[in-house]
Amino acid sequence: MSVGSDAENLVVRTDEGAIACLTLSSPGSLNALSDAMLDVLAKQLSQIAQDPSVRVVILRGAGKAFCAGHDLKEMTAARAAPDGGAAYFADLFDRCGQLMQAIPRLPQPVIAQVHGIATAAGCQLVATCDMAVAAEGTRFGVNGVNIGLFCSTPMVALSRNVPRKQAFEMLTTGDFIAADRAQELGLVNRVVPHAALETETLALAKQVADKLARAVRIGKRAFYDQLDQDLSGAYALTRDAMVQNMLDSDTAEGIAAFIEKRAPTWEQ
Amino acid sequence: MSVGSDAENLVVRTDEGAIACLTLSSPGSLNALSDAMLDVLAKQLSQIAQDPSVRVVILRGAGKAFCAGHDLKEMTAARAAPDGGAAYFADLFDRCGQLMQAIPRLPQPVIAQVHGIATAAGCQLVATCDMAVAAEGTRFGVNGVNIGLFCSTPMVALSRNVPRKQAFEMLTTGDFIAADRAQELGLVNRVVPHAALETETLALAKQVADKLARAVRIGKRAFYDQLDQDLSGAYALTRDAMVQNMLDSDTAEGIAAFIEKRAPTWEQ
Amino acid sequence: MSVGSDAENLVVRTDEGAIACLTLSSPGSLNALSDAMLDVLAKQLSQIAQDPSVRVVILRGAGKAFCAGHDLKEMTAARAAPDGGAAYFADLFDRCGQLMQAIPRLPQPVIAQVHGIATAAGCQLVATCDMAVAAEGTRFGVNGVNIGLFCSTPMVALSRNVPRKQAFEMLTTGDFIAADRAQELGLVNRVVPHAALETETLALAKQVADKLARAVRIGKRAFYDQLDQDLSGAYALTRDAMVQNMLDSDTAEGIAAFIEKRAPTWEQ
Repeated sequence: MSVGSDAENLVVRTDEGAIACLTLSSPGSLNALSDAMLDVLAKQLSQIAQDPSVRVVILRGAGKAFCAGHDLKEMTAARAAPDGGAAYFADLFDRCGQLMQAIPRLPQPVIAQVHGIATAAGCQLVATCDMAVAAEGTRFGVNGVNIGLFCSTPMVALSRNVPRKQAFEMLTTGDFIAADRAQELGLVNRVVPHAALETETLALAKQVADKLARAVRIGKRAFYDQLDQDLSGAYALTRDAMVQNMLDSDTAEGIAAFIEKRAPTWEQ
Repeated sequence: MSVGSDAENLVVRTDEGAIACLTLSSPGSLNALSDAMLDVLAKQLSQIAQDPSVRVVILRGAGKAFCAGHDLKEMTAARAAPDGGAAYFADLFDRCGQLMQAIPRLPQPVIAQVHGIATAAGCQLVATCDMAVAAEGTRFGVNGVNIGLFCSTPMVALSRNVPRKQAFEMLTTGDFIAADRAQELGLVNRVVPHAALETETLALAKQVADKLARAVRIGKRAFYDQLDQDLSGAYALTRDAMVQNMLDSDTAEGIAAFIEKRAPTWEQ
Repeated sequence: MSVGSDAENLVVRTDEGAIACLTLSSPGSLNALSDAMLDVLAKQLSQIAQDPSVRVVILRGAGKAFCAGHDLKEMTAARAAPDGGAAYFADLFDRCGQLMQAIPRLPQPVIAQVHGIATAAGCQLVATCDMAVAAEGTRFGVNGVNIGLFCSTPMVALSRNVPRKQAFEMLTTGDFIAADRAQELGLVNRVVPHAALETETLALAKQVADKLARAVRIGKRAFYDQLDQDLSGAYALTRDAMVQNMLDSDTAEGIAAFIEKRAPTWEQ
């Protein structure tokens, strides 16, 4: 799919040092994950994956909401095709699933900065990010069931964050949960006053960006790789990650500095 | 095994609209999962699985308790066989395991309505149901270890609801936990006053029954299927569920109604 | 590796009845998991695995801390090898991973008695034990990232105890968490005043030691085996565990005593 220059503005990237902030910028549609939005976001992440100067990514939404999920008007228009939209829907959910897998595969940690609402695929995006900071008052839901479309793809990410029965309840009742409850359930890391959302998220990003970037990359990749392994496979995989990490000259300096009770001098 | 008409009364089915209530009805044995009880409950679930008029199932117990687990007298009697009961025990735990797998495979969501005690295989039944509402004062335990029989089959369901160390503690200490703690740990969704147990459970069931039934069926099946997959497999599987769901004419109507800000008219 | 008699004092075993207490005893290094410490601890566990008189193991640390992780000085010295330490590091993390797998495979339950700090591989050890009791004031961290060494092997155990986003936060920020938070997240079972740590841990150990030991062994093995299986595999595996357990004569006595409302007389 070709995306014009207008479409490229759908995701605005602004960098603060080593931190790339990606802002979903379609407030009129509550930052719906339209074809163009999915495409531009995937492209931005792909560029960041190749860019060693970026150490942490913040993902946030412009306007009143973080993200309200898929673009229902666009999906409805696709029904006009001879196959009733079947091919389009398969491709859409494929592209969306690829995006959701690109975030854990991204070398850099991704932090969701969430406000307003995060519903359906928007809630999936929160669950998919490595960490999430939410403003007080944010509401989370996988509420597609209310209009007859069960949030089956969002539940992949949700059920890997939230205990089983609580995920099932959200999916079948369509009920929203508040930010505090989202934190209790494991869906977000921290809840902060709305006025502090940007600074608190940035502070967390800076804390992570100050670490040795190659160590964080080794660790993030191993984190997700080992989750799907049995214990023996997980230890074989992380043993190799530890060896790779130990052989980094900056890690040698970090450990030496710790032993010598001084600050490390990293080249990174 | 043949079950007579008396045995069939062991599980009483009463319907409220699209909600089937199954009541374990052997209060004198604290609704023990005897051979006959397992057989009748499996038969009831099998009939419900074929019955599209049922949209939600509530599982509850008559008398003082939800369910106190297996029928220890029946199991002890089986020791008289030449093999000391080995063949019987293998068959019993096979049948029980089949029942516990039939609940997540049932097309309709199943809600446990829990009061009094839920112990051993009774606690397993709570953990196995898709959701659970408990009365204040309910006690939960996998306490077979107290009499020398570790709750190995109940732990399959328990350890998929409750964090690892907390499940291990319950299994090896035999201690009961209170309803509030069960909710904290993820074993139940809601705790309500005993007097409100039936109405609150029914309200939750009605809320789910009011959704588009085919969407809920697609979603429930995908929910359990994707849990055992890696991320890539889970997204492939749920992509297909989303396409199937999108092509349902009532889902088209649900989405159109949402866009047009009106109530949907579902044929379902 | 050969371990001399001094090294053997690195892990002091003191038994209280059927409970073996293993005390990491290198307080000057905050009980670092040096080559010698790993070797002696592995040897102690291996002996206990063969010893049916031991029913429960308590693992604790002498001095100010439970365990502060690997021995960084020893690791740094290994860099002098022609390969920069690569072969040594691979072997070290292999041995450490074997130890961490030996604990869930040990026939007897292992309880961590934690005080002071539990960091990096020390935090991994807590997560690896079947249960954990922590003193108020204990701090937990997987903080290797602060010196450029991501805690990739500790995260195998951590991410099997703690929800995903919270584990990721600990790993990438290097922040410590307090004992209460560790309990909320599932990393420890109980938090008690420091003065009560030893007695409370011992009381928990005694409670488990009083159960039928063969039932606990069957159950512990099945607990970890079934966690990596899908539902059908988990039920097949635990069915066999239940049959084995039922055919134990002391279990027959335990169940008979329960039915007859008397205390069991176990030969065990």
